[in-house]
Formats: sequence, C-alpha cells, structure tokens
Amino acid sequence: MPTTDVRYVSPPITANNNNSSTVISAANEDDTWVWAQIKSEARRDAESEPALASYLYSTILSHSSLEQSLSFHLGNKLCSSTLLSTLLYDLFLNAFTSDPSLRSAAIADLRAARQRDPACESFSHCFLNYKGFLACQAHRVTHRLWQQSRQPLALALHSRIADVFAVDIHPAARIGKGVLFDHATGVVVGETAVIGNNVSILHHVTLGGTGKVGGDRHPKIEDGVLIGAGATILGNVKIGEGAKVGAGSVVLIDVPPRTTAVGNPARLVGGKEKPSKNKDVPGESMDHTSFISEWSDYII
Amino acid sequence: MPTTDVRYVSPPITANNNNSSTVISAANEDDTWVWAQIKSEARRDAESEPALASYLYSTILSHSSLEQSLSFHLGNKLCSSTLLSTLLYDLFLNAFTSDPSLRSAAIADLRAARQRDPACESFSHCFLNYKGFLACQAHRVTHRLWQQSRQPLALALHSRIADVFAVDIHPAARIGKGVLFDHATGVVVGETAVIGNNVSILHHVTLGGTGKVGGDRHPKIEDGVLIGAGATILGNVKIGEGAKVGAGSVVLIDVPPRTTAVGNPARLVGGKEKPSKNKDVPGESMDHTSFISEWSDYII
Amino acid sequence: MPTTDVRYVSPPITANNNNSSTVISAANEDDTWVWAQIKSEARRDAESEPALASYLYSTILSHSSLEQSLSFHLGNKLCSSTLLSTLLYDLFLNAFTSDPSLRSAAIADLRAARQRDPACESFSHCFLNYKGFLACQAHRVTHRLWQQSRQPLALALHSRIADVFAVDIHPAARIGKGVLFDHATGVVVGETAVIGNNVSILHHVTLGGTGKVGGDRHPKIEDGVLIGAGATILGNVKIGEGAKVGAGSVVLIDVPPRTTAVGNPARLVGGKEKPSKNKDVPGESMDHTSFISEWSDYII
Amino acid sequence: MPTTDVRYVSPPITANNNNSSTVISAANEDDTWVWAQIKSEARRDAESEPALASYLYSTILSHSSLEQSLSFHLGNKLCSSTLLSTLLYDLFLNAFTSDPSLRSAAIADLRAARQRDPACESFSHCFLNYKGFLACQAHRVTHRLWQQSRQPLALALHSRIADVFAVDIHPAARIGKGVLFDHATGVVVGETAVIGNNVSILHHVTLGGTGKVGGDRHPKIEDGVLIGAGATILGNVKIGEGAKVGAGSVVLIDVPPRTTAVGNPARLVGGKEKPSKNKDVPGESMDHTSFISEWSDYII
Amino acid sequence: MPTTDVRYVSPPITANNNNSSTVISAANEDDTWVWAQIKSEARRDAESEPALASYLYSTILSHSSLEQSLSFHLGNKLCSSTLLSTLLYDLFLNAFTSDPSLRSAAIADLRAARQRDPACESFSHCFLNYKGFLACQAHRVTHRLWQQSRQPLALALHSRIADVFAVDIHPAARIGKGVLFDHATGVVVGETAVIGNNVSILHHVTLGGTGKVGGDRHPKIEDGVLIGAGATILGNVKIGEGAKVGAGSVVLIDVPPRTTAVGNPARLVGGKEKPSKNKDVPGESMDHTSFISEWSDYII
Amino acid sequence: MPTTDVRYVSPPITANNNNSSTVISAANEDDTWVWAQIKSEARRDAESEPALASYLYSTILSHSSLEQSLSFHLGNKLCSSTLLSTLLYDLFLNAFTSDPSLRSAAIADLRAARQRDPACESFSHCFLNYKGFLACQAHRVTHRLWQQSRQPLALALHSRIADVFAVDIHPAARIGKGVLFDHATGVVVGETAVIGNNVSILHHVTLGGTGKVGGDRHPKIEDGVLIGAGATILGNVKIGEGAKVGAGSVVLIDVPPRTTAVGNPARLVGGKEKPSKNKDVPGESMDHTSFISEWSDYII
Repeated sequence: MPTTDVRYVSPPITANNNNSSTVISAANEDDTWVWAQIKSEARRDAESEPALASYLYSTILSHSSLEQSLSFHLGNKLCSSTLLSTLLYDLFLNAFTSDPSLRSAAIADLRAARQRDPACESFSHCFLNYKGFLACQAHRVTHRLWQQSRQPLALALHSRIADVFAVDIHPAARIGKGVLFDHATGVVVGETAVIGNNVSILHHVTLGGTGKVGGDRHPKIEDGVLIGAGATILGNVKIGEGAKVGAGSVVLIDVPPRTTAVGNPARLVGGKEKPSKNKDVPGESMDHTSFISEWSDYII
Repeated sequence: MPTTDVRYVSPPITANNNNSSTVISAANEDDTWVWAQIKSEARRDAESEPALASYLYSTILSHSSLEQSLSFHLGNKLCSSTLLSTLLYDLFLNAFTSDPSLRSAAIADLRAARQRDPACESFSHCFLNYKGFLACQAHRVTHRLWQQSRQPLALALHSRIADVFAVDIHPAARIGKGVLFDHATGVVVGETAVIGNNVSILHHVTLGGTGKVGGDRHPKIEDGVLIGAGATILGNVKIGEGAKVGAGSVVLIDVPPRTTAVGNPARLVGGKEKPSKNKDVPGESMDHTSFISEWSDYII
Repeated sequence: MPTTDVRYVSPPITANNNNSSTVISAANEDDTWVWAQIKSEARRDAESEPALASYLYSTILSHSSLEQSLSFHLGNKLCSSTLLSTLLYDLFLNAFTSDPSLRSAAIADLRAARQRDPACESFSHCFLNYKGFLACQAHRVTHRLWQQSRQPLALALHSRIADVFAVDIHPAARIGKGVLFDHATGVVVGETAVIGNNVSILHHVTLGGTGKVGGDRHPKIEDGVLIGAGATILGNVKIGEGAKVGAGSVVLIDVPPRTTAVGNPARLVGGKEKPSKNKDVPGESMDHTSFISEWSDYII
Repeated sequence: MPTTDVRYVSPPITANNNNSSTVISAANEDDTWVWAQIKSEARRDAESEPALASYLYSTILSHSSLEQSLSFHLGNKLCSSTLLSTLLYDLFLNAFTSDPSLRSAAIADLRAARQRDPACESFSHCFLNYKGFLACQAHRVTHRLWQQSRQPLALALHSRIADVFAVDIHPAARIGKGVLFDHATGVVVGETAVIGNNVSILHHVTLGGTGKVGGDRHPKIEDGVLIGAGATILGNVKIGEGAKVGAGSVVLIDVPPRTTAVGNPARLVGGKEKPSKNKDVPGESMDHTSFISEWSDYII
Repeated sequence: MPTTDVRYVSPPITANNNNSSTVISAANEDDTWVWAQIKSEARRDAESEPALASYLYSTILSHSSLEQSLSFHLGNKLCSSTLLSTLLYDLFLNAFTSDPSLRSAAIADLRAARQRDPACESFSHCFLNYKGFLACQAHRVTHRLWQQSRQPLALALHSRIADVFAVDIHPAARIGKGVLFDHATGVVVGETAVIGNNVSILHHVTLGGTGKVGGDRHPKIEDGVLIGAGATILGNVKIGEGAKVGAGSVVLIDVPPRTTAVGNPARLVGGKEKPSKNKDVPGESMDHTSFISEWSDYII
Repeated sequence: MPTTDVRYVSPPITANNNNSSTVISAANEDDTWVWAQIKSEARRDAESEPALASYLYSTILSHSSLEQSLSFHLGNKLCSSTLLSTLLYDLFLNAFTSDPSLRSAAIADLRAARQRDPACESFSHCFLNYKGFLACQAHRVTHRLWQQSRQPLALALHSRIADVFAVDIHPAARIGKGVLFDHATGVVVGETAVIGNNVSILHHVTLGGTGKVGGDRHPKIEDGVLIGAGATILGNVKIGEGAKVGAGSVVLIDVPPRTTAVGNPARLVGGKEKPSKNKDVPGESMDHTSFISEWSDYII
C-alpha cells in the first residue's frame, strides 16, 4: 500500500499546519482552489473559442462541484448504448459524494500532471483531455465497488474503461495519490498490483502476473517510482521507493530503491554491485534519459 | 493451419466418445452447458446488482441462444453512426447461424479464458467484458466474409474492431480454437499469419510482416504457444508447438517447438545448443516467468 | 522540418513539368485522379455489397469532394455526446477548404499506404479504414488550430483522436507528407517532435520527451526513415535521412543517415565504426527484417 | 371484424383465379411485385439523389425482403435510448416472419395509399414516409403481441408509436386490410374499436370510448367507410358499410350503411328519413366534399 | 387555483385520519404503497417478458424511489443531442427532491388514470407509457422553474415536451392534482390557464387565449370537470365545478357548475334556462356520452 | 401566390426607402439586427442559467450567422439514425446560403411571432422553441428542393418534419412571409395549398383536399387571414384577404375578404347578406373571440 502521503505543497497554502483538522481544512481549501482554477480556465477558453464553449459549459461550467463535473464527464465518456450515461453519472456521483478521498486523489493527480508534464497547459486541460487521468479516476470508483463486493458492476465498468481509453487497470489494483499516467494508452495493471504515491507511469507499461495461478502475483510499485514507456514488469516483484525503470525494459525481479533498471532483461545502471543512486524523486522529476551516459557503453 | 483439436474435456461430458456423431452431440451438450452457465451467472448478478440488471437483460438474459446474445453484444459494441447496430446484429447473427463452428470456437475461447486467467471470475465475465474474446469472435466473422470474397465488408468491420478494441487482426489471418487474447489492447496480427489451437497471446503482441512485398509474410504460431506481453514476431517464421516467447522479445527467426525465446533479439533459454524444454503446454499453463533463473545471468 | 518533397510520380501525370504552375496543375490533376479513384472503388463495392452501400454512400459517394468526404468521415468518427458531429464536420471542412496543403498531404499519405502496404487493397480501403491515416489527417487539423493559437480546441480534438484511434500525436508536432502510420495503435508523438516526408512508422512507436523540463525535447525524424513496431525513441535526437530503427528498439541518441539501429539499447547494424548502409529508402521500401543476417550473431 | 377481403385487383395479375391455391400464389406474386417495385423506385431515387442514397440503401436496398426492410425501418423509427433498435428489429422481424398475413396487410395498405392519395408519388414514398402506414404496421405487431398475452410489451411498443407518430391505436383494436390513415397525426383508436377493410381515415380522427366502464365501448367501422379529418366518433356505435363521416363531425349514434353524416352533432345528409346514398365506396373514392350542395342550406 | 384536495381514499389507508400529521403520514404511506406497487408490477412483467426486462430494470427496477425513476424516464424521453439526458435527469431529480408536492401530484395523477381509464392496466402501465401523465409531470417541473424566474430553461424544456409528446402546456399554467390527460396528443394549454383538481381532459383539447393582448386570457377549469376530445375553450372563461364539455365543442363563454355544454358553438344540454345537472363528478366518472338522449333532437 | 409584401416596419429602420437598393440594404440591416438580438438574448440567458449555456452556445452562440445557427438547430432536431445530422446540416446550410429569401422569410416569421403572440418572450425563444417556426423554415427548404425536382429528398425531409413536430406541410405547398403557426401541433397543409403573407394559423388546422383526384384541390389562404384552432378547410376554396375562420369551424366553400366564418358548417358572422367586416388585419391582430357577441344567439 502507498506508504507516504502526497508531499508537494499546494500553492495557496502557506501557513504552518500543526494539527489534523487544520490539515483537512487546508486540503479542502486546496481542493477548492483547484476547482476554482479549472472553472476559471474553462471560462477563459469558452470566451476565446465559441466553438468549444458548449462543450466547456456542459462539462465544467454548468456544474457546481468538481465531483459533479467529473461524474458528468466520465459518464459521457464511458457510456454506451447498453450502459446509459445517466446510470454511470449516478454511479460516479454517488461514489464521489460518499467518499471524499476520491476527490482528494483526483486533485493530487491533477497537480501531478500539471507539475510533471511540460505539455500540460492547465488544470482544465488535464481534467478534460488526459485519458490517463480520467481512466485513473474511473478506476478508483471501480476499486471502491470491488471493495463493496460489487464485482460484476466493477468489472463492467472496467471493461468500458479498457475499451474507451485503452487503459486496463483491474478493479482490485490499489493506486496511491499524485499518480501520473502519461499518455496512458496500453497501460495494463493486474489484479494484485499496488502503485504507491507520486508515481509516474508512461504508456504501454505492463504490471503483469506470472501465470494462471491466482494469489498475490503482480508488481508492487513503491512511492516516487518512474516507469518509462513500454516497460514490462511481471510477477510479485518490488520496485523500490524512488527507483526508475527505463523505457522498453523487461523486469522480472526486484529493483532496489533509488536505482535505475534498463534493458531487456533489465539491469541496474552502474552495475549490480554499485548501482547509481537517483538523487531526485524520479516519479516527480520525470527524468527519462539522464542515465544514458552511464548505460555501460551505450553509443551508436 | 491449426493442427490439433481442443484438448481439454468439458465438465459435463464423461462418457467415452467413440464416434463422430457422439462427439458432435457431446460438443453440443457442452456448448449448451456453457450458455446455461452464462445465463445463470447473469441472473445471479442481475439479482444482486439492480444497477447492472438492465445491461445483463439486454445483453444476455433476453436472448435465447449464445449466438443471438453475442451478435447483439458485438453489434452494440461495434456500431457507429454510419454502421448501424441493426446491420451489424444481422450480419453477426447470419454468420453465427450459418456456421456452427463459430459457436464452438467461441465456447472453446471462453473455456480457455476461464481456465487460464485467474482474474477471470466467470464465463459471463469473459463473455461480456474481455475485449480480446470479443475482438476474436468478431474477427472470426470478418474471416468468414473474407473467405466469401466480401473483402470490403470484412475490412470495414475490421476497422471497427481496431477502433473499438484496439485489436487489429487482419480478416485473412487464420486463428484456431481455445485461443486466449489476454488484455488484448494493441495486438496486431497480419494478413498471412496463422495461430493454432490453445494458444495464449498477451497484449501488445505483434505478428507482423516483412515489408512491402506481398505474399506469405507473417508468422505461423503453432498449437499451445504462449507469447508474452509486448513481444514482436516478424516475418514468415514458425513458432513451434508448445514454444514460449518472453515478454518484450523481438523474434525474427524460427523458434523450435517446446523451447523458450527471450530478449531483444530473442535467444533460447538454456542456449541454442541445448535449450531448456517446456514440460507443460505454455499456452495453457500461462507460465510467464519461471525461466528467469535460467536466463543466463539475469540478476539485478 | 520536412526537407524534401514527395518524390513519387503519380500515375496519370506523364508530361514533363517545367514550371511551378504546371506542377500545381499537375498536382491538382493528381489529387483529382485519386478522389475519382476512391469514388470509383466505392461505387464498385456498393454494387457488390448492398450491406455496405449505405455506409459507402454516406461516407464517400454522396460527397462532391475529398475534403467534404473526409470531413464527414472524421466528424462521425471523432464526435461524442458533448462534441457533436456537426461541429466537427464544420471544423474539418473549414480547415480543409482554407488550407489546400491539407488535401495534398492527405493524397500523398493515401499514395504512401497504397504503395508501401501490401495489405492495402485500394485507396478507399485506406481512406475509410486506416486509423493511422485518419488520425494523421485529423492531427494536421489540430496542428493548424495550434498554429492559429486555438490551443483549447486543438487539445480537445487531440483528446478525441487519442481516445478513438489510440493514436496520440501532440497538436504541435510537425509531420511531413507521404507519411504512413501502419496499424497505428499506440503511437505517441510528443510536442516538439518533427517527422519528415516519406516516413513510415509502425504501431506502438513512441517519439517521447526527456522529462519534465519544457523546450525542444522530442525526436526529429528525417525523410525516408522507417521505424519498426514498438520502437521507443526519446529525447531531442535525430534519426537521419533514410535510417531504419528496428522493431522494439530503444533509441536515446542520434542515428546517422542510412544506418539501421536495433536492440535495447539500440546499436547500429554492422557496428558503430562501419555500419551497414541502407541502399533503398526504408520509409518507402518498408524492409523490416533484411538486416537479420547482419545482426551480430542473431540466431536461435 | 373485417367482413370482406381486399377487393381491388393488383396490376400484374390478370388471370382468372379459380381456386384458393392459385389465389395464394397470385397474392404472393402480387406481394413480390410490390416489393420489387419499391426496390426499383428506391434504386432510381438513389441514383438521382446521392444525398439520399445512404438512407435508401440502409432502409430498403440492403434488405432481401419487404419484411426485413420494414422491420429495420420501424426499429429505427421507434427505438429509444431504453428500447434499442436491435431489440425492436428482432421483435418486428419475428412477427413478420411468423405471421405472413402481416405482410399481406402491409401490401394492401400500400396499394390503398397509392390508389387513393393523389399526393402519394410511389410505393416507396408511402413505405418510407407515411406515418399512418408505419404506425398501422407497427400496430398490427402490437395487436399480435396482445393476442399472445404479451400485454406489457404490446403497451410499451404502443407508447413508442404514440410518441413518435402521434398516432395512438390501442393494441387490442382490430384493423382490416387496405386501410389508409392519411396524414394520421392525432388519430386515436380505442381498445374495443374495430375497423373493417378498405377504410380511409383522416388525421385527428377519434374512435373513442364512453367513459370509465370497461367492456365493449368503442366504435365499429365497417368496410369501405371514409372518416373525414377531425371527426370524433364515440361509443359502441356502428358506422355502416360504405358510409361517410364528414370532417369535424361528432358522431355518438349509429350511421346507416352508405349514408353520409356531417356536423356537430352529426346528421345525415339528405335528412334522416331519406338520406342520400353514396354510390361509390367512400373509403376508396375519398370524396370529402361532394355532399356540400346537399348539406341543407350550407352557403356562406 | 385548485380549490379542493384529492378526494378519493387510497386503498391501504382505512383508519380515521383526524389530524394533519396523520394525514401527511398517511399520504406518505400511500405514496410508498404506489411506488411499491409499480415495482412489483414491473418485476412481474420483467419475469414474464424477458424482451422487456432490460427496459423495466433501467427505468423502474434499478431505482430506489419514484422520484429517481421518474427523473430517469423523463430525462431519457426528453433528451436530445443538444440537451443531454444527464442534464435533464439532474434537473428533474433536483426538482422532485426539493419539492415533495411534485411526488404527491404524480401519485394522485397515477391514481386518477388507474381509476378512470378502463384501458389502464396497472400503475406501471401509466407510469411508463401514458404521454399525458409524463407530459404533466414534466410540466410541473417547468412550472416550478418558471416560478423560480428561470424562464429560458422552463421554455426550453417546454419545447421538448411539445416535440416529444405533442402536448403543449405553457410553463406558467397552473394544474391541480389527480388530473388525467387521456391520450393527450394535441393538448394545448395557454399561459394563464388554470386547471383544478380531479379534472379529466381528453386529447386535442385547447385551453386557448383571445388574441395578441397579454394578461389573464385563458380558461379556468374548476375541480371535477370533464372536457371531451377535441373541445376548444378560448378566453378567460370559467368552466364551473363538475361541469362537462362535450367532444368537439367550441366554448367561448362561461359554463355553469355541474352543467354540460355541447356543440359548436356550445350550448347547455337541457337548455339555458333549466340545464340538466350532472349528478356525479364528470372528471371522475368520465361519462362522455350519456347526455345524448337529451341533446335536443340528436338522432341520425 | 402571396400578393403583398411584409407590411410592418422593423424597429431600426426609420429612413424613407425610395429605391430598391435601399430597400434591400435596409432589409439586410433589419435581418442583421434580429440576429444580433437573438445572440444578445442567448448570451444573457447563458449567463443567468448555466444549465442552459451549453445548449445556447452549441445552438446559437457558436455560430456566425442566423443561417448557420438555424441549419444546425434544424439538423439536430430532424436527424435520425438513418438521416444523419451532418447530412441535414449540410442540406440546410446550402439552401439558406444559396437562397437569401429563405433568411428574409425566417426573419419575417420571427417578427410575426414576436408581435402577435403575447407568450413569445423574445426572438431567441421563438427561434429555439417554436415548433411552428421551425417546421415552417424546414418546409421552405423542402419546397425549394421540390422546385428543383428533388422530390424524394423533399419528401424524406417532409416525413421527418411530420414525425418530429407533428406538423405536416406538403413540400409543394406555397407559404408567404410573416406567417405564424402558433402551437402548430397537428397542422396539415396539402399539396396545392397556398398561404399568403401575414397569415396566422393555429394548431390542428387542416388545409385539405377534396378526394383522390389530383390537380389543384387545396385551399388558397390570402394575406392577413387568421385561422383558429382546429379549423378544417377543404377543397380549392379561397379564404379572402383579411378574413377570419373561427376555431373548430369546418369550411368547404369560399369565405369573402374581411369576413368571419364560424361553426360547423361554417357561416358568416352577421349573416350571409350583410356579414360583419373585420376592421383590422386578423392575421396580425389575432383576435380570436370578439365576434362572440355577434354569433347569432350564442349564449350558454
């Protein structure tokens, strides 16, 4: 399970938070600030781009809360001729209203995208357009249904997410906060996988199982990890806190904290004995390529 | 072409089947049992989850046969504003009704998912939600159209399957029975590819061609093969019966039967001279990672 | 930026073109010929396949120009319950009408598919069904919106393309003419990437960035390059004219012109010092596998 | 109940039909002729009007029988987000296939429109566009469901017909053949009403009940009757064979055969004692206004 | 304004209700009973008719309250491509939740249909299928919006009701409880019209204005009135308590309580001086035709 | 054909118009003013009612001209699963762009509603919500298609208008400018009917034919006529300039100019010999009921 809390400090909160009630209140203020920001951006865009105004009003500006807006948006993205938008809207709104941690997680994920992805223009850009963000929020709801023993509904929703976003996260998988699924197409996360806080995962990443035997059989990704595009991690292995897995790597055994594994099969940059240690938090710094010079003799 | 028949024995068939008419009758009984099972599961889920009941009734419980239910489900999944659900429903129903082998293949695929994927909760779970299962059944219909020289229709349907499921199987490709496309997103199978019986193929797998010259240019996957996530197999190469291709591998030449190829470029586990031999049927056992210890010096 | 123009000569143009006005006129004739060809193919298919006739009439045969037909097709493919088909149709038609280079590029891409992909049966097959072709044409319109400082609209459209086709090309990325995105599922092209003319890119290819720092951080793909399935190229690196990147390769540094890079991490075929030189234009010849024999000791 | 059979002779049948098997065969030939005619008209229109071709192909030209075409057309007209077109298509197709008299009745109604309505340009015009024709055919299916004790389904379908066409015919009402509902908007026909053969009924006509007591309480309209626009007929009264009810009339008591009733309350033209007698069959001649000169002193 | 309360006693309430809190509680019990009845009927029908089960589950059985079910049903009936079902569902659910009198009125209307219309098979039949019932409930919400000075939204919704049900009730019109709009197609009720309790109004009835001058210009229909099909009542005239207006009548001046007006122009049955007096409550007894014998010399 | 031009003077035009070019320019200014007014109203409503803003933006505020906005609105109202909104949008936009008189007529109709209907709150209210206005504008386009000998398309569109709005105007019918169809449900206008300028027609009005003989067989309504709700006018009769037909009247013979006909059968108010003369223009004054006192002995 996620072991640490979201670390970054949100912009409008400068006071020293000494007790939990203040923390909650500050978090609420923070969440409120982000939603106000999203509405403000949407209003600006609606004014400058009439062709988009209808979309912005229906999706964001006509709603009184981030929960309602997100429920509407997901309901319309995931509905089909046999799973109506009204049903899904209701389902999402109930979940977001009953469990405030879903909203906090969404806010943390929005901040993650905004801070880590230089192509992320604004909060509303991520909120409206990032399939990784949307798939992750929808997953959190399937996870809640799963925990409530509503498997058939969770799996039906999971199927829609996999069809619409090409992001396939099993409802039972546990995901922390401040997680960025960048581009996201092709991500597959298995049933017993766990993803910590402040993790960044690129597209085509697989956190897969070991075979047809059930039980705990998928990877555990600790806090602050960065997993590059197309990496495949299989089995109940641990990717230690602050570790980095290079793009296209195939990882079948544990990766120690703060090290970088690359290649197929993956090996540690700097060697097994004295691996190079990441100095920053890769999941936040998103540094995909600085290890090149150390990748043994990688030249062309 | 698929060289062997489905090997597993279905639950309710215990008698000794000595002649073909008995076999057919037994197969029918078996098929009937699976459809009854799907309906029974759907009824149970509809009762426990009213929010899903409408979906379960429209998709499964209102239909009198697996063929009709599957035609409805695929028609609604694959329709668009220019290819109406009624047209597709008609097309699928005609195909399933005219060619009973399509139903048998669907049943065998359902059993494959149920037996090999520990995350597969029930037959109805696979039937409703597995994009690999659905894409494969729809492919079988495009293949039938192709054989009937109805190329334009086959290709239009192929395009819808590729859009909706992100699974791109050329209508001319031949696929056996008891095949599991697990997760399935990103699978690409070329025009002259052949996939045998009891094969399991993970997501992002490519069975691709060699270039712009036509003719027989795609891989031949024999019975019982397991191909791991993200593996790329190019050209008219043969992956021998019971062989295994590791996740992320790039294979451009033949892989002998019952061996395991891993890496980029792929090499045989145990070495070219005395490769380790798989003792089970990888396509059925789905063992993705047991070869690690033998992967030369793979440690981190 | 793309450095050379489309090189092939279109079938009906045989005269010697000595000046630019003749060239333009010839190009127009060429474009007209392709559109006439598409209509003729569609008419033939509508006659032979009544089940498809409605689709062919609504998508192709009822339209008076390729621009209108393409706008209709993209509008219906990309619309959603909150972004209506009429809005998108209008948007596409305005773009295609205002900027004739968009039509020329579409024609060049159609020719590329027809010439390079042996599975491409006809122009109309590509026009109707190739998600890579359609995603690319829609991308060109998002790119135009981006250049007109209409970011929010460009990004909303980008999001729909990524959802519907699982092809994620940032609106700011620049793409030449005669480009083939074959199969296309899972392609990701970052904000500052540039793709030249006559390039062929297979599915699951990533042209990604280096991290969270903005600026020019994505690959530059020069004319005539071929990038195999699942290749990952990261950072502001240059893949030189006529180079080839093998399937599944991970490339983090420059690849010299006319060489072939394969593996993870990628290395030059023939070695760094005296790499083998491609004699044809890989982006056009689409030769994926001929380098095998030279791939050091690649045997199984 | 309808007391006579369709009287007109269809164009291509000129032979003397002496026995029932010949009659059936002739009727089949006749039906076949009408369907061929509809297809031929649709083909002509598709050629001359490309904008309509897609509609004509999907609705008529892609279908192999009138039953299938009509089922498709009604399914798409009457479907809603909670009653899917595939369900309705199936329902209609089953009914039309199981009960050939439904097709005969449809053919007879088509002929009625073609012969009696000078604005009816062609069979396909009526088949595609006449809401009275379509509502009547859909009613026949609800009536069949009613007779099969499938009340809830009959009533749900009845509700859709009333919403979509503003034509409200209770599923239990019995309707003969060769019936023309001209314009049809606002027609209301109650539960125990009976309409004979070769009747013509204009829009806004009510065949209503007497109050809240159940039982046989609606009008009986005998063969060949013409009921003008906006006429209201209430109670278990008989409108005799060949009678005519003027536009806007209110009729609460029996109207003798071959007489004309006009006004509010309706009276017989020519007077109660020696009413004028219609010489033709008003339901076929459609003469709405020739009685004016006899309407006592009707001048302005 | 409606002057009396709903008079009938609901089935399960037999105790003597002496004070208002008991009345309210009894009313709640009553409402609960009707909703339970609707669900029970729907469950029975879903079991006997699998083809309808999906519809019954989505519309009734998956909802936890009549308000939610009605909001869903109206949202799906009235939505369009530019007014989404989720928006309307939200709007209706908010209104029904905020104002419990809307639910009471719906219950009273359901009882009215059940008691007065012999063709009304069950509560669920009316709830699902009666366009008059549905249009009236949707009207009550437009009326609430109107009172909240949300004119543009009220009028947009009004427009959808008029399109979908062909029932055109101005949002400002005031309507009592226990009202039956039977068949309902073509009903027009103007801005300043008032309809009392226990009124029954047939289809094509107009409560219209006097011209282009604003102000109070539409009819006032008092409690217990019955208005026959196609009757037109124009101007600020009063139709007294327990009066009856015959089908097809045109009424431009007041009708005294408990009298019956028929004809064009309407006159009192029995004569102006000593008009016959209705002994029952016509709006409840629904006796449309018993006055015939007294209609001066109405014979044919 | 309409014999006089629109008579009212639009607000912003005060100058003396002496020649036709000034007239045209003034008309254009007038049209521009109305469109600006509609946008201004919509903007105000979008600001005050966020729930409606999306609808207002998509329908009005995102469009650059009344023609485009109306084409979009009609396209979305009239589309179906087999007649796509993009097709209809294109069709309407082409018609409105090619024939500026369609825009002028729409503007004149908007003014008519605004001036004559006290319930008409604003131009945008009529533009968005009046089914009579919308049906009439769509009819004008069917009429244009009819004149261009595109009968099948005109009739298909006519059928959609009749389904969606319950307004059934034959494409061949000719309609002037400044026409108000108030409420409009149930209006039927036959093939050879002609309606002049500044006419007002209430709901359920029929301008019907005489029977099954073709030719000129429908009413001619001259300028300034008012036809009350439910009136039925049959045959090739002339309703003279400035005449009035009372609600529920049945008219089968000519009505002289400036007289009022009422009843079934209709008679002139004031008697045939010396009928009362209307002093205003009834089509504009909309006085429905002032003749009561003169209606012979109409009392109750």
